[in-house]
Amino acid sequence: MRRRFVALAAALGAAPVVAAAADAARARVVVQVSEADPARWNLALNNVRNLQDDLGAANVEIEVVAYGPGIGMLKLDAPTNSRVSEAVKAGVQVAACENTMRNQKLERADMHPNVSYVPAGVTEIVRRQREGWAYLRP
Amino acid sequence: MRRRFVALAAALGAAPVVAAAADAARARVVVQVSEADPARWNLALNNVRNLQDDLGAANVEIEVVAYGPGIGMLKLDAPTNSRVSEAVKAGVQVAACENTMRNQKLERADMHPNVSYVPAGVTEIVRRQREGWAYLRP
Amino acid sequence: MRRRFVALAAALGAAPVVAAAADAARARVVVQVSEADPARWNLALNNVRNLQDDLGAANVEIEVVAYGPGIGMLKLDAPTNSRVSEAVKAGVQVAACENTMRNQKLERADMHPNVSYVPAGVTEIVRRQREGWAYLRP
Repeated sequence: MRRRFVALAAALGAAPVVAAAADAARARVVVQVSEADPARWNLALNNVRNLQDDLGAANVEIEVVAYGPGIGMLKLDAPTNSRVSEAVKAGVQVAACENTMRNQKLERADMHPNVSYVPAGVTEIVRRQREGWAYLRP
Repeated sequence: MRRRFVALAAALGAAPVVAAAADAARARVVVQVSEADPARWNLALNNVRNLQDDLGAANVEIEVVAYGPGIGMLKLDAPTNSRVSEAVKAGVQVAACENTMRNQKLERADMHPNVSYVPAGVTEIVRRQREGWAYLRP
Repeated sequence: MRRRFVALAAALGAAPVVAAAADAARARVVVQVSEADPARWNLALNNVRNLQDDLGAANVEIEVVAYGPGIGMLKLDAPTNSRVSEAVKAGVQVAACENTMRNQKLERADMHPNVSYVPAGVTEIVRRQREGWAYLRP
């Protein structure tokens, strides 16, 4: 019976539906860091940890995007350095804006070694929302 | 004629469609309060009142979520106390984050008597966006 | 062959589908300015320019909404005046909140000549999100 159901589902192209259901179950959140204030960086990192604690890290996909005055959070000498490492280890994507880095003459060698890079932070935030991600501006 | 339409609609399972249309007509907004600044609390409460004035209180569902440094807005001694009462009386849901309360050793007895509670403010904000609510970060 | 396809498409009512596809291709972003800080105004205007540079001005529709303490960005004597002119020239809609203007006794003669007006800034931001626009709060 089950085999017949699977065959029917395959014939009907059910696989994408299943995939969509799995996506729907998983929360996705893009978190903006655009201020030069370390207290705000800690708040953003608290928000990320609370989301993972509350939903379960496997049930929420999180991308933190630092740009403009917020880029400082991802510099090598940032006071939040160890917390950024922990977030990345916990599966959070933490992205630095290359536009901002260019403006501030920052090289990848100046940045936290575990971050990823996006061409423009603001475009990334808009792109994620268009893909259905929730937006959080701590 | 109308009765026949209703019978047909019921047979076709139209009730959920009607409900969805009603939901679509009603704006839903989750408002974030995450800063320790009373001027910002007043701005958030102004935003809420303007939304109700402009759309009609019956046409907009609003939830204010206070968390992190913003929890102060909902403490018994907050300068915004009477305005929070007015908002609740006007049908706004005003929610305090229990995560934050635990961290700040706040009990329900320390809080404005009319607020509701959510386990984690940040998760509530994400959940509302996933349900299609607009997000406002004053 | 192509003519036949067009006729068929017209018969099937394909035009709205094409229009929807074009809309889907074009990013739409509503940008909130609600603080009295000129540094924040410049950040918002940088964000707008970066979005246009990155996506191409033709591919992104942007509306900046200034309200509350942010209304200062659109006053005649604002330090960001020439940058607002440039944004409008580049196709960005820059809107002032008439609610705020009334509260602050501002007339249209007090405002940047190229701005548009919305009855309530906060309602505009909610309305845009309901229409599927991304939200940016710099």
